[in-house]
Amino acid sequence: MAEHFAEAVADAAALVAEVRQGRRKSIARLMSIAESITAGSKPAMAEVHRHTGRAHIIGLTGVPGSGKSTMCRVLTQRFRAMGRTVGIVAVDPSSPFSGGAILGDRIRMLDLAGDPGVFIRSMATRGALGGLARATLDVVDVLDVAGFDVVLIETVGVGQDEVDIVQAAHTVIVVSAPGLGDEIQAIKAGVLEIADIHVISKCDRPEANDTAANLRAMLRLGTLARGILSAWKVPVVATSAQRREGIEALVEAVDQHQQYLLQSGEHAIRHRRIIEMRILKAAEDIVRDRLLRENRPQLDALLDAAASGTIDPYTAARRLLQAEEG
Amino acid sequence: MAEHFAEAVADAAALVAEVRQGRRKSIARLMSIAESITAGSKPAMAEVHRHTGRAHIIGLTGVPGSGKSTMCRVLTQRFRAMGRTVGIVAVDPSSPFSGGAILGDRIRMLDLAGDPGVFIRSMATRGALGGLARATLDVVDVLDVAGFDVVLIETVGVGQDEVDIVQAAHTVIVVSAPGLGDEIQAIKAGVLEIADIHVISKCDRPEANDTAANLRAMLRLGTLARGILSAWKVPVVATSAQRREGIEALVEAVDQHQQYLLQSGEHAIRHRRIIEMRILKAAEDIVRDRLLRENRPQLDALLDAAASGTIDPYTAARRLLQAEEG
Repeated sequence: MAEHFAEAVADAAALVAEVRQGRRKSIARLMSIAESITAGSKPAMAEVHRHTGRAHIIGLTGVPGSGKSTMCRVLTQRFRAMGRTVGIVAVDPSSPFSGGAILGDRIRMLDLAGDPGVFIRSMATRGALGGLARATLDVVDVLDVAGFDVVLIETVGVGQDEVDIVQAAHTVIVVSAPGLGDEIQAIKAGVLEIADIHVISKCDRPEANDTAANLRAMLRLGTLARGILSAWKVPVVATSAQRREGIEALVEAVDQHQQYLLQSGEHAIRHRRIIEMRILKAAEDIVRDRLLRENRPQLDALLDAAASGTIDPYTAARRLLQAEEG
Repeated sequence: MAEHFAEAVADAAALVAEVRQGRRKSIARLMSIAESITAGSKPAMAEVHRHTGRAHIIGLTGVPGSGKSTMCRVLTQRFRAMGRTVGIVAVDPSSPFSGGAILGDRIRMLDLAGDPGVFIRSMATRGALGGLARATLDVVDVLDVAGFDVVLIETVGVGQDEVDIVQAAHTVIVVSAPGLGDEIQAIKAGVLEIADIHVISKCDRPEANDTAANLRAMLRLGTLARGILSAWKVPVVATSAQRREGIEALVEAVDQHQQYLLQSGEHAIRHRRIIEMRILKAAEDIVRDRLLRENRPQLDALLDAAASGTIDPYTAARRLLQAEEG
């Protein structure tokens, strides 16, 4: 058992070394290990964690139709033109047809796929029993360790897990499209307050000025309501992917935000908050995994009792945890 | 301690008895207890669970802008006209401005608020550390026990937790609006496969026929791809809230689905699956709560180590759980 473990650790170190050299096959392999929840993945992820901290991680979020995927593409093209390498992690809820990847979006990404300075990974959600946030952030770590200068996490901006994921980025960009009552959509998504940078996509549309004005008004309201006096003033950047407008300004805003994080000491505070979230998510994963694997007979018995109304789900959960510990 | 507990149990029984008589103040109070994660809530929820199982629970989901909230309102009006009472649980991601409730939607709900046969509860998401699914389903239980014939759960149809919540309903309705590439939005939301009934809102729009045809084509594809031969053929119901069209057909589809569940034995299978999910969610809640409250010094020490890169979050989580058990 101990020998087995030592072997796994040696393998992990070798694989991570290959990843650090940027070998694409090794990156993909390590990502698959990161996504899996088997015990074997742990030495590798511990080794990965030792080498993280170089990449600037950007969370890109917005409701469907906001132009988020297009923004992800043009932003990547701009970073590449500046000589920076880019890893992209696309988080899409699973679909029975695509297994997590959306045809349309992925086709739009294809022009980036041949570039060795770009690595794209689609995450499928893992169904009812979770683990998405942990898996996604482990995959981000792999891209960091592989040496990508920028890691873009693209998520649909609604849902608790998705908000957790995007909040694990250094810089959070929220994309809104003009029209469609999108300022309401931004509120609905609960992402207004987590934006470090607001981006208006499709600013060639006539309603774009209204959208920008609404966002600015809401930012003022939010600052007043919450009484927050941050040195970082959240910018609203108008862009048009079609006309290639505003992308330089967006990259500039990202760089300014990165500078702000480092100079203000906010970077260390965020890092600690992200690590706390990841520890708790990992603990949840471990407990769920144990309950489902090791305590299946116990779970089935309690399930019978709860399904027939003899006990409530909370009592069943408590007894299950007691049985596991006892 | 034991006396204290007996007292709490007696209080809980009294409160639940009041709820079963339909007293609105008691319903609201029990909901607040259900939403809280303090130890005191447990006798009450155990008592609640004993009396559940009467209501038909409907999950209503769709991306922002799909017309989901309007559908919730007109469906409720229709149920009321038929003499059925309706409880509504609206799950919205939290907003710094509204504290979880969206002004526009809630105003549209106001015409229902004076009706004693209707009870509306807005759930705020609980931030990064979760518990939303558990809390929401406990609130649904309270409405069930309070005697509401129908309980509608309205969620934004994106995000893992939201999908879990809506899958805990007996009948899942997915709302799509014509135009806006909404069939893609439905796939993105990962909700296509969980729909028992598809509804097209705003069928007065010219693109409505295309939307219906696309949904039907995708349903055929999905059935083929997954090789599922279910006796329930998922209907696509075209509605217009503005013209009051299709709402009767929707209620009929809901009633047919309820009949199907009971006659096919599917109801018991679903119930068991829902209970399993709830037990596991409750177990996660208990563990997270314990880690955050009781093991704070241990968590802080491991957080320091993980933030400085000495250990990875997974190892930190494992040590935290070991410390707790040891």
